[in-house]
Amino acid sequence: MIEPFAAVEVIAAKRDRNELSDAQIDWVISAYTRGVVADEQMSALLMAILLNGMTSREISRWTQAMIDSGSRLEWSGLNRPTADKHSTGGVGDKITLPLAPLVAACGGAVPQLSGRGLGHTGGTLDKLESIPGWRAELTNEEMLKVLRDCGAVICAAGSGLAPADKKLYALRDVTATVEAIPLIASSIMSKKIAEGTAALILDVKTGNGAFMRDPKEASILARTMVELGESAGVTTRALVTAMDVPLGLTVGNALEVRESVEVLAGGGPADVVELTLILAREMISAAGIVGKDPEVALKDGSAMDVWRRMIKAQGGDPDGELPWAKERHQIFATTSGRMVGMNAMKVGVAAWRLGAGRSRQGEKVQAGAGIELHAKPGHEITTGQLLMSLHTDEPERFAGALEILDGSVTIVPDGEVKRLPLIVERIQV
Amino acid sequence: MIEPFAAVEVIAAKRDRNELSDAQIDWVISAYTRGVVADEQMSALLMAILLNGMTSREISRWTQAMIDSGSRLEWSGLNRPTADKHSTGGVGDKITLPLAPLVAACGGAVPQLSGRGLGHTGGTLDKLESIPGWRAELTNEEMLKVLRDCGAVICAAGSGLAPADKKLYALRDVTATVEAIPLIASSIMSKKIAEGTAALILDVKTGNGAFMRDPKEASILARTMVELGESAGVTTRALVTAMDVPLGLTVGNALEVRESVEVLAGGGPADVVELTLILAREMISAAGIVGKDPEVALKDGSAMDVWRRMIKAQGGDPDGELPWAKERHQIFATTSGRMVGMNAMKVGVAAWRLGAGRSRQGEKVQAGAGIELHAKPGHEITTGQLLMSLHTDEPERFAGALEILDGSVTIVPDGEVKRLPLIVERIQV
Repeated sequence: MIEPFAAVEVIAAKRDRNELSDAQIDWVISAYTRGVVADEQMSALLMAILLNGMTSREISRWTQAMIDSGSRLEWSGLNRPTADKHSTGGVGDKITLPLAPLVAACGGAVPQLSGRGLGHTGGTLDKLESIPGWRAELTNEEMLKVLRDCGAVICAAGSGLAPADKKLYALRDVTATVEAIPLIASSIMSKKIAEGTAALILDVKTGNGAFMRDPKEASILARTMVELGESAGVTTRALVTAMDVPLGLTVGNALEVRESVEVLAGGGPADVVELTLILAREMISAAGIVGKDPEVALKDGSAMDVWRRMIKAQGGDPDGELPWAKERHQIFATTSGRMVGMNAMKVGVAAWRLGAGRSRQGEKVQAGAGIELHAKPGHEITTGQLLMSLHTDEPERFAGALEILDGSVTIVPDGEVKRLPLIVERIQV
Repeated sequence: MIEPFAAVEVIAAKRDRNELSDAQIDWVISAYTRGVVADEQMSALLMAILLNGMTSREISRWTQAMIDSGSRLEWSGLNRPTADKHSTGGVGDKITLPLAPLVAACGGAVPQLSGRGLGHTGGTLDKLESIPGWRAELTNEEMLKVLRDCGAVICAAGSGLAPADKKLYALRDVTATVEAIPLIASSIMSKKIAEGTAALILDVKTGNGAFMRDPKEASILARTMVELGESAGVTTRALVTAMDVPLGLTVGNALEVRESVEVLAGGGPADVVELTLILAREMISAAGIVGKDPEVALKDGSAMDVWRRMIKAQGGDPDGELPWAKERHQIFATTSGRMVGMNAMKVGVAAWRLGAGRSRQGEKVQAGAGIELHAKPGHEITTGQLLMSLHTDEPERFAGALEILDGSVTIVPDGEVKRLPLIVERIQV
């Protein structure tokens, strides 16, 4: 084909703070996917976008062009309204695990296409893979069958969805162009819109353990994504939520599955239960479902029923024993007082160093590795009290984890807990 | 070797407007030359430099790192002081051709390592290659011999000088990162400093036919380069000169050689003679030569003698007939009045379209192609008077040249010539 633009013209336009035209955006994404625009040209354009920004119109078109680079799923054959949730990633954030079956138990269909972890935040698929026999990779037909039979499916996104995003994501990672709101928003939303959900709730994390540490930046990202979703016809709402302290009492793959099952059994840590219920109500409402109370579905066992069917449908044994790591190291309090802070980032990096996370795509993770928290901010602590249990298969990993955990917990004789509210902001346009 | 930095850290530092350390700059240039930093990483860094700038210290270190990526020539065996000139490129800018032998005739040694043209500006080597038999490619030994025997040598820069710059230049060309003063200045000066000249005069063109259209930008570039040269121990001065109107009456390879020989014979257009003499005086002065008048060396034939020896030493026949293009098209005035303007860019692009220039590295150029100007701004014009002669071997090229030349000349019944002074600014620190 004759290319309508030269890459250098498009780069120069953004470099010179001009708005890119629809035709320029469509072309540059398509040409990059086809290999006509080279990596070194796209990375120069990404840096210009990072530094000079994009208008709402540009972000919307860029997202659409990424969707158009691949196929789009379609769920019109279902008898239930679809609803999905996306979290920007946090420490101990296992909410998808109880949430997807809970919303299904309330009448929604939840096609939850998830990813694996990279760095200090865990990945939903890594967590579920600690269940013996469970398979993340499904064909489109299998995915539809699980969704139809169970009301929810959590699986890996196929390679056909937004292939431009896959290529761009890998490029951004090595060129210091990850941290641009237009690029983050379009990356997340192109995949979620291509996934074909009718309703979408975004959980944008903020605080020291989140990608967007600053609540103002998180709010801008959240609003940008809500606008992208709505303009693509997806009912989209966002919650900016706290990630200054880990969610729940576990960080790590099998450890988090255990805690999720506790929540589905009607127990579990208060913050996990609360956030799960808030997000479930948002999804149910956005999907247009009325008269269903997710709190009841947790208590009466119907959410747990969906969970068990869903795990079984993907080859997993819901009664199978979850793995434990071979080695354990306990951390005790060396002082008495009130715990007023716990650094989510330090806990996340420690779990990663214990083997729960990966540094490069494709790296194996340990199913049993991670951290159990025996106390959280707000608790009164006595010298010698057990604070954390570290788990790993490789004891040489303890030293690195302990190093980063130094100073991760603040215990004072008397003081106020200083932390973000669980729900920092709710965004609906 | 263990790399002291990750490329992504260095890119992120410049992206976030931090000053790069000496160690970061040294590493990133060396690692890029070695292929450890990938093209897509360097292009993101170049865009961040273009948009966020560099301090004087960073530019100086970046230039030094490019010099250190290759070898450096050394001329201590000569009995004459070395002096060189660099022009940022203009339309009809053949000054190097009469200037190098002229300065040699005044006692200087001129090691003029030149390039080929790209786009609307011509290249010194392309011009000289229209002389039958003349060779641009010399070994270091041949170059030294010509310089010693003739006092001047004009030849291609070997691949050993600033190899990082060669790689960066090709990358900048395809990533819209050419137009950054730190990158332009370091590219030019790394080559000129590596070339080993003791004195350097920079001719920074400004106006519509120049790379730096805005005289203020040209001035910043000139000052940046003078500071780079001086800090590397090279006596460096810059002139910002006019390129709103073509220099002289010819644009094209053999056409410009003819005009240069006229200047060496004591004739030639006034503006070419004037600029040649001004630059010669600057070079002589910067080289520390006293008591020599270049005007005399033009008139008494001594500059012409050097020219003839220099052309012969590189295989050329100074008496050989210069080629003419096969086809000619003449443009006549359609109105009477005063010529008050002539657009250098349009004339340059027209000569390029006639075959005098190239669009891609490695493309052939026509020796005879180009434009003769029969009138210049300030002249009184009568309807029907010959204004320009276009030359090419391929008559199908006339249409494209005529298209761009439309409106290139302004003739009014009565009016002032509006153009830049030949010398806009002189910079010495």
